[in-house]
Amino acid sequence: MKKAVFYHAGCPVCVQAEETVAKSLDTGKFDIEIVHLGEDRSRINEAEDAGVESVPALVIDGHPFHINFGALLEDVKG
Amino acid sequence: MKKAVFYHAGCPVCVQAEETVAKSLDTGKFDIEIVHLGEDRSRINEAEDAGVESVPALVIDGHPFHINFGALLEDVKG
Repeated sequence: MKKAVFYHAGCPVCVQAEETVAKSLDTGKFDIEIVHLGEDRSRINEAEDAGVESVPALVIDGHPFHINFGALLEDVKG
Repeated sequence: MKKAVFYHAGCPVCVQAEETVAKSLDTGKFDIEIVHLGEDRSRINEAEDAGVESVPALVIDGHPFHINFGALLEDVKG
């Protein structure tokens, strides 16, 4: 099982990407985790280390995929 | 079965998104089509109508999701 982590910050663009893209991944192949960086700020460093620059983003197997644009990670960090 | 169309232009960013994101969608829920806009230029208008501004992009159920950035659709049009 590969790991897929969807990072977001609760923004409208994030919600649409979560509902449409993150929930469309094959759960038979992926263990999918949804992380709200605004609420779980301890995960921000991990997202940054994976190469996430903006949210929403999906990290699959260690590779970051930015999906549309909701907010810069810098702004989520505040 | 919902429709998912992955539009790309053969760029390295496109290839990685195709291999990692497009191929991770649940084929039990989606009928997935891969369209190379550089080779199939007759589909450019359709991508534009769906709101695609850059490639690679995934259109799921009519909603465009730009994944990272490979090239502007304007530049693919030439």
